[in-house]
Amino acid sequence: MAKSRKKSTRSSANASLFDDTNKPVVLSPQDERTLGKIYNLAANITAQAERDAEPVFAIPARSLGNVSFNKEKRVLQMGDKTTNRELFNLSQAKSFMQTILVASGAKRLVEMGKTTSIRGLYYMLKHDIKPTKEPTFHDQGECDPVIEDCEVLLEALREELHLFADKRGDMVGNITIVDSGDEIDCSKMGSGGYAIPSIVEPSVIQFKECKADFVLHVEKNTVWQRFNEDKFWKKHNCILTHGNGQPPRGVRRLLNRLHNELRLPIYCLLDNDPWGYYIYSVVKQGSINLAYESERMATPDAKFIGLRSRDFERCGLSEGVKISLNDVDRRRAKQIAEYPWFVHKKDWQREIDTMLKNGFKLEVEALVSRSISYMTEEYVPRLLREGDFLD
Amino acid sequence: MAKSRKKSTRSSANASLFDDTNKPVVLSPQDERTLGKIYNLAANITAQAERDAEPVFAIPARSLGNVSFNKEKRVLQMGDKTTNRELFNLSQAKSFMQTILVASGAKRLVEMGKTTSIRGLYYMLKHDIKPTKEPTFHDQGECDPVIEDCEVLLEALREELHLFADKRGDMVGNITIVDSGDEIDCSKMGSGGYAIPSIVEPSVIQFKECKADFVLHVEKNTVWQRFNEDKFWKKHNCILTHGNGQPPRGVRRLLNRLHNELRLPIYCLLDNDPWGYYIYSVVKQGSINLAYESERMATPDAKFIGLRSRDFERCGLSEGVKISLNDVDRRRAKQIAEYPWFVHKKDWQREIDTMLKNGFKLEVEALVSRSISYMTEEYVPRLLREGDFLD
Repeated sequence: MAKSRKKSTRSSANASLFDDTNKPVVLSPQDERTLGKIYNLAANITAQAERDAEPVFAIPARSLGNVSFNKEKRVLQMGDKTTNRELFNLSQAKSFMQTILVASGAKRLVEMGKTTSIRGLYYMLKHDIKPTKEPTFHDQGECDPVIEDCEVLLEALREELHLFADKRGDMVGNITIVDSGDEIDCSKMGSGGYAIPSIVEPSVIQFKECKADFVLHVEKNTVWQRFNEDKFWKKHNCILTHGNGQPPRGVRRLLNRLHNELRLPIYCLLDNDPWGYYIYSVVKQGSINLAYESERMATPDAKFIGLRSRDFERCGLSEGVKISLNDVDRRRAKQIAEYPWFVHKKDWQREIDTMLKNGFKLEVEALVSRSISYMTEEYVPRLLREGDFLD
Repeated sequence: MAKSRKKSTRSSANASLFDDTNKPVVLSPQDERTLGKIYNLAANITAQAERDAEPVFAIPARSLGNVSFNKEKRVLQMGDKTTNRELFNLSQAKSFMQTILVASGAKRLVEMGKTTSIRGLYYMLKHDIKPTKEPTFHDQGECDPVIEDCEVLLEALREELHLFADKRGDMVGNITIVDSGDEIDCSKMGSGGYAIPSIVEPSVIQFKECKADFVLHVEKNTVWQRFNEDKFWKKHNCILTHGNGQPPRGVRRLLNRLHNELRLPIYCLLDNDPWGYYIYSVVKQGSINLAYESERMATPDAKFIGLRSRDFERCGLSEGVKISLNDVDRRRAKQIAEYPWFVHKKDWQREIDTMLKNGFKLEVEALVSRSISYMTEEYVPRLLREGDFLD
């Protein structure tokens, strides 16, 4: 255990810990910090009770009105509005209880050195409050927002609370990492690749050696397979990732760490459609729902190397690859053009405008109509060489 | 190149081959067989034309009426009904053209030593038939069934035609494989795991060394993460896989190969609901749509070690974990009970009947309500020890 840990104060994770099979658990410094925050929350509430005050705590508001774009840091951020959660308030008592319950669940997980899915946590905490038949949570939909509440309340990423999300997304390339003590050379991962876990915090994943010059992040696993089969990452000395559509938290956090810790540029190869723009926006600036995590999840320096509205003519694609825009596409495109981080960028305005005028969208796979490896041998190399991307 | 290859006959892949960047391509024996089949198809058609016959070929019928359960092999199989596809028949000319087009696309892929997604193949083949404006395919929905036609026509799995599907599913455990020349020790893959590719044919994946005694296949990646974190595969000397819901082709084919080539028993940990039963059915007997591939995709000896209708009481689960059956569940459950491979099995009839009487279903994650690691430390080990599974 870390030497710096204080002894026998209630706000510190001091006791010798054991998991549910009675094996001793060694806490990482990060786990100690997380536990400390949970103990503090509990200590504040019991202190209120002990001095006969009505128990209450303040939670940063996760409403849209409390989210803004920080132009300096170039990420979405939460403001400083908070809302109170009071125990002796009929409309708040239940969510008070649920918040404390989730925090206590996270405490158990961290102390045991175990992680679980948010579904697992829901099952772990769900029970009838005896002697009533009132359940702690009616369904998972009631539990998930409380998890987000706990994240902002404790200023801890979900992953630090030992909760994991669905995992999807793979990596290959010129980097060697250590994952849970196993050294993994991502340049020797065959056609399958290394599956990116959902928790990629430094306590789990360390970067051992990286020769790569940049990261190419592609939208779809099928495109990733093409780039991997052509050993693009070997020829261009890079790392190749995908997130199977909108990248899950683990992939976004990994891109963030690869950029911030290893100084690798991140290039995103996405479709020429509103969904591709949106994925780029989430990777770059964070998502509105999870604005409180932007600084650790988003990568404002990421570049868009995806298909462009000009590419139908420029790449000489055949008529058949056009996919007509529908009403939803048009509406989404106009919304995205109004995002604060796109609205003042001429390149992006021109890009979105051209797509709307074209009346069609293009998928990365459309490049196959030129030739199977046009995307890996010509398209991306040319854009990289010419530094021709959207910011 | 394989020494046995014949020289300079039209039905053999004889010429020196180059990929689209002019690098020489070395064909595997499997690729040579596939090319041979495509050449034969073409040779038959040109022979018909040369003797002034109307070009026609027969395709095994992929209709439900031509699918039956082979009790001996215990897999779904296609019968021997065929349908003709004639060039000089107004209603068949287009699909005649499309079939030959897909076969020629597969030929190009195999010859170039490249693979692509079915979406990529669609883009590769889509063009207007000049001088008309008639496209070869209107959309991908028109192309996909033709790919399946080519599979049955050529008696080649999609993967042998160098086409890949979406990939999802990961593997860890006591096995070392070789994937595209890279040796991958799946016991040293950290928390992320080895991402199972969509093409796992012997030409891509070889089994180098396997110490494992069996395979535990779980339904969801979140459950897989729990088993991996608890190093279940180390304690029980096994291989741990998941397919993120209904396993994609690559995962099913890998389970088939692990069972048939390495003689490993396959245990499936799935939910106690109709969807879990269905996944089991697909892994075990194959799917109705793809009956022609059952022998290579299905694993009739697979066992169901999933949650059972009795488990609510037997495992002492809390009330909150019950999920009420809805009408769709009930209808699906009754359909599945009628499947030829379930209808005569008393255990399965009792299982499905009990679920219907219970009126609720149970997810594997429900076991978390006992304790985080109940599923890995008690539930599965007990069933394995007692040999208590459904067949």
